Amino acid sequence: MSHPRNVYLQMKSLEEARKTVMDTFGQGAGLGSETVPTPEAVGRILSQPLTAKLSSPHFHAAAMDGIAVCARATFGAHEAQPKQLAVGREAYFVNTGHVLPEGCDAVIMIEHVQQLDDQSVQIEAPAYPWQHVRKMGEDIVATELLFARHHLVSPYCIGALLSAGRFEVPVFCRPKVVIIPTGSELLDWRKTDVEEMRPGQVIESNAYVLAAMVQAAGGLSEQWPQIGDDPAAIRGAIQTALDQSAQAVLVTGGSSAGSADYARSAIAGLGEVLVHGVTMMPGKPAIIGTVDRKPVFGIPGYPVSAIMAFEQLVAPLLASWQGQPDPGRHRIEVWPTRKIASKLGVEEFVRVKIGRVGETAVATALPRGAGQITSITEADGIVRIPAHVEGVGTDSAVKAELLRPLQSIDKTLVAVGSHDNTLDLLADELRAQSAHLSLSSSHVGSMGGLMGIKRGVCHLAGTHLLDENDGTYNISYIQKHLKDMDIRLVHLVMRDQGLMVPAGNPKQVRGLEDLGRDDIRLINRQAGSGTRILLDYRLKELGLETNQIDGYHNEEFTHMAVAVAILSTAADVGLGIYAAAKALGLDFIPVVTEQYDLVIPTAHYESKAMQSLLAVINSASFQQRVATLGGYHTERTGEVLM
Amino acid sequence: MSHPRNVYLQMKSLEEARKTVMDTFGQGAGLGSETVPTPEAVGRILSQPLTAKLSSPHFHAAAMDGIAVCARATFGAHEAQPKQLAVGREAYFVNTGHVLPEGCDAVIMIEHVQQLDDQSVQIEAPAYPWQHVRKMGEDIVATELLFARHHLVSPYCIGALLSAGRFEVPVFCRPKVVIIPTGSELLDWRKTDVEEMRPGQVIESNAYVLAAMVQAAGGLSEQWPQIGDDPAAIRGAIQTALDQSAQAVLVTGGSSAGSADYARSAIAGLGEVLVHGVTMMPGKPAIIGTVDRKPVFGIPGYPVSAIMAFEQLVAPLLASWQGQPDPGRHRIEVWPTRKIASKLGVEEFVRVKIGRVGETAVATALPRGAGQITSITEADGIVRIPAHVEGVGTDSAVKAELLRPLQSIDKTLVAVGSHDNTLDLLADELRAQSAHLSLSSSHVGSMGGLMGIKRGVCHLAGTHLLDENDGTYNISYIQKHLKDMDIRLVHLVMRDQGLMVPAGNPKQVRGLEDLGRDDIRLINRQAGSGTRILLDYRLKELGLETNQIDGYHNEEFTHMAVAVAILSTAADVGLGIYAAAKALGLDFIPVVTEQYDLVIPTAHYESKAMQSLLAVINSASFQQRVATLGGYHTERTGEVLM
Repeated sequence: MSHPRNVYLQMKSLEEARKTVMDTFGQGAGLGSETVPTPEAVGRILSQPLTAKLSSPHFHAAAMDGIAVCARATFGAHEAQPKQLAVGREAYFVNTGHVLPEGCDAVIMIEHVQQLDDQSVQIEAPAYPWQHVRKMGEDIVATELLFARHHLVSPYCIGALLSAGRFEVPVFCRPKVVIIPTGSELLDWRKTDVEEMRPGQVIESNAYVLAAMVQAAGGLSEQWPQIGDDPAAIRGAIQTALDQSAQAVLVTGGSSAGSADYARSAIAGLGEVLVHGVTMMPGKPAIIGTVDRKPVFGIPGYPVSAIMAFEQLVAPLLASWQGQPDPGRHRIEVWPTRKIASKLGVEEFVRVKIGRVGETAVATALPRGAGQITSITEADGIVRIPAHVEGVGTDSAVKAELLRPLQSIDKTLVAVGSHDNTLDLLADELRAQSAHLSLSSSHVGSMGGLMGIKRGVCHLAGTHLLDENDGTYNISYIQKHLKDMDIRLVHLVMRDQGLMVPAGNPKQVRGLEDLGRDDIRLINRQAGSGTRILLDYRLKELGLETNQIDGYHNEEFTHMAVAVAILSTAADVGLGIYAAAKALGLDFIPVVTEQYDLVIPTAHYESKAMQSLLAVINSASFQQRVATLGGYHTERTGEVLM
Repeated sequence: MSHPRNVYLQMKSLEEARKTVMDTFGQGAGLGSETVPTPEAVGRILSQPLTAKLSSPHFHAAAMDGIAVCARATFGAHEAQPKQLAVGREAYFVNTGHVLPEGCDAVIMIEHVQQLDDQSVQIEAPAYPWQHVRKMGEDIVATELLFARHHLVSPYCIGALLSAGRFEVPVFCRPKVVIIPTGSELLDWRKTDVEEMRPGQVIESNAYVLAAMVQAAGGLSEQWPQIGDDPAAIRGAIQTALDQSAQAVLVTGGSSAGSADYARSAIAGLGEVLVHGVTMMPGKPAIIGTVDRKPVFGIPGYPVSAIMAFEQLVAPLLASWQGQPDPGRHRIEVWPTRKIASKLGVEEFVRVKIGRVGETAVATALPRGAGQITSITEADGIVRIPAHVEGVGTDSAVKAELLRPLQSIDKTLVAVGSHDNTLDLLADELRAQSAHLSLSSSHVGSMGGLMGIKRGVCHLAGTHLLDENDGTYNISYIQKHLKDMDIRLVHLVMRDQGLMVPAGNPKQVRGLEDLGRDDIRLINRQAGSGTRILLDYRLKELGLETNQIDGYHNEEFTHMAVAVAILSTAADVGLGIYAAAKALGLDFIPVVTEQYDLVIPTAHYESKAMQSLLAVINSASFQQRVATLGGYHTERTGEVLM
């Protein structure tokens, strides 16, 4: 068995790679221009400067309801000496928008006109020339430039264009981008039954994401059928796409340097590979190639890599072709809630959750894996860590590019702490009951939550910290770790913790005492989590040493991740909540019912947003949904304990 | 002739009006839910929370190309004591994405594997458990919440949804909004010949702008045919729209209190008028009504009023129905370049141009008229001046809501000063030659431009200030007014100034000396403009007193506005540039060829953006376009004079 491999021969920094793209292709794809009816031009880009055909108004118009007059004829009128004007000769009734009659140059508001009879009116003040008149051309002057070329047509622009007599406008044709998904493991969702999927199969989704991003970038996307790991077929598809007037081709998957990665050789076979490998993360295995003088990109298969490669390399090109600036994002300063490590030599795009706590925007890094699409769907922003920097600490602010509007981030309650499934329900119920608010949770364990409160990086923290001395929860920890702070403690739920085992309990686990067995492999929670503290406490009671337990040092960060480890046979047993076991169909051996509370600094407790959240916690609809999860007890939910 | 009038009976503050809308209708239009294929859900809003059907990955997958192993079997391997593994029993070749074979829990990168023969490989370091493995559920765990309800589906979300086995999703039906344009003066652009338009006629454009805004707000707009000022027809259309399941109706025009304004009576005749008149500007004549428990809005006819009424009253309602927060805009601090006056008792929405000059964002107010659609198409932002504030000065920053991305504002060169038609060409050529840059001009006259430079509110200023003593231009003014500043002066054009008169010169104007004639009415430029200074200088030479000149005190701010005044017979003559006369077909009597230069602080002169602008000025394409305007001389264009 031989394993021929490529290597990244033309590895470039992101800056160099972008320069290559722009230098090689930036001078325009020769996008044509087309003429569209003005109302259909919203979101399109003018390919030519546009001048007005018509002035607006194109006549002197009354700007008020009243009488049109010649200002000179009104001079001298005052309260003690009113002036009478002959209707139809010196004064003309007009409504807003009416044409100013010949000889008139002012309008007197109807409120200031006294009608004496059908033929005459009286005024008590003079008009000054052009008062309450919209002069011809006041808004738009025929022949003048209305919009420079490359102007993005907004809904507002439609009004200006129609008013200026521009009923159709020249806009750039949308650049046509063909997307060719490759990979023998890919399934077409339209032909897939989720129940029948086999290990190794993957639902193709990158092409759909890319297509939507191409559209958002003003392009026309064309998704082609999936191709297996077949170099000739990939080469053929690229050539056909270009022959069919694609202005750019995106080949997804197979862009790395593995033995089954054929994108590079396909491009090289047809034209030239300019860049293979970009020192960015995610997105490293990107390819920039040229075939028939058109750009052909190899887009990495990991979803976040695909997104980053598109946004950094393809989107700027599409923008440039349409005369648009690089589609940058709004950036703000954020304070990391925890240190963010980063690899030297690569530019890292760290997805972060952002929240505003007090005056400060705080950012918590999400999982880093390029394969984790949820790390970007859940992100509020991206912190870029340059290649020459090893990471960022918590002692200084960094810039984050925003993925969500700041106003919406400002209305997010930030929870940092222990993980519990009811937090998801809480987030959903909050959206349902208070549309403008949202709840964002980061899972760092109970102690991590208290530290987050202490450092002022969150509005609330979920904790279930058992005091070994008296069996109470949370209060003694708060008194110890947050002793100088004014804190409220709100009870969320009682919940059953226990051992999760595969359905049918094949290894006959009876309780914690079995963790010492040779044939039992544990999956543990991370240090500082309430569940870990509970386990350690119980193990001590039982006199079990941690080094007697196989898998004690294998850690996961959430109950669900522990449950998944058991379901996938990576481990035999793990301590966690009933809801997680139930969700994945595992058996559950109860160990204890514990108390899960929310720690809230008083300053945040009193905010309108937090009061909305508390109202949700106290609502019947939330508590009923919690009950359906199983393993929860809501008798005291909402009680203020401190 | 009788003139029955309404009055604003239910006038409210904007805050009260918004509260009325939300309290009365905010609890939902009972938007239904529909199921759409996931790839078509981009931009839609989830009507239900969505859990994952499938984990991602749904198997343990190799995260690297290499060999899959059981980590325990590799323990002890090091450089001095390599370990051999049997292929097919202890080691399995895998590529990224492959299923981890039964019994394996780690992957060793191919780069670290030495293949001895077909049956065996050698490693020099141990693997730790789960290294280079994407564990089942690492990204998405089946049964877990994927997105809370009311989540806006982004392109990224499509990836998460498909990967989680969610091939179709429940989204809110779009709220249907019927738009009924009213007004006997309105023309349908599809049936309009611009050449044949008569005074008083107006091209209907508000309905198109509103339709585009409804779409942008997630609604389905339906534009109905225009209706004249016919109360019964308006009433009938509203009722029909509601009968045909409109969830909201917008009646445009006729919402004021004039004798021909029927929107209010139409709504009152069918249901109830809750608010008539909102103390906002533009947007005051808005109506909020309820018919069949559905909202019917009277939208003012002036285009900016229509936009403001929609954005402030209708858009928040559409958002709320879809569980979305109020569509706010990003806000930044800006410094007004000039005092912005404002009326007490109304909340003003002042459209401003914004530029970043040095570290400061500066804002210049655009024309205030509600009828001026260009005041919003040219705006970069909106400064809201509360009802209890009389105006804002230049000594403190105010908040501006951004209409353009900040990054794009940051790449705008701000010109403040004298008006010249070549500035429009310059703006267009700059967009053409440097897509990421733009030039924004505010016309405040030559002296205003120098003051702008002095106060640091612009990057450059156009001036043509004649020194009466020696006939030179600009330099002596700069030396006097900007004496402590490091300034560059770049020559833009020589241009012909002269008297504009109607085509055929009906009043036989021969030169400036005729301005003293009784039958000649002048339209003048504002004080501080170079043209005004030129006129005053020449009048003094001629010995003509300004009080001998009819119309001397009537002022306009641009050459084109002066030309329009003459074209529309508001005046007989005005001093201005040849290009303006030519554009509107006026006759032109040359008076002088004058020098128009750009004043640029050296700090800005050296910026990359300014150097791009200077390159445009020096380009043949720009100078050729200037020449086609007529009345310009470009022999010395681009010369650096100081």
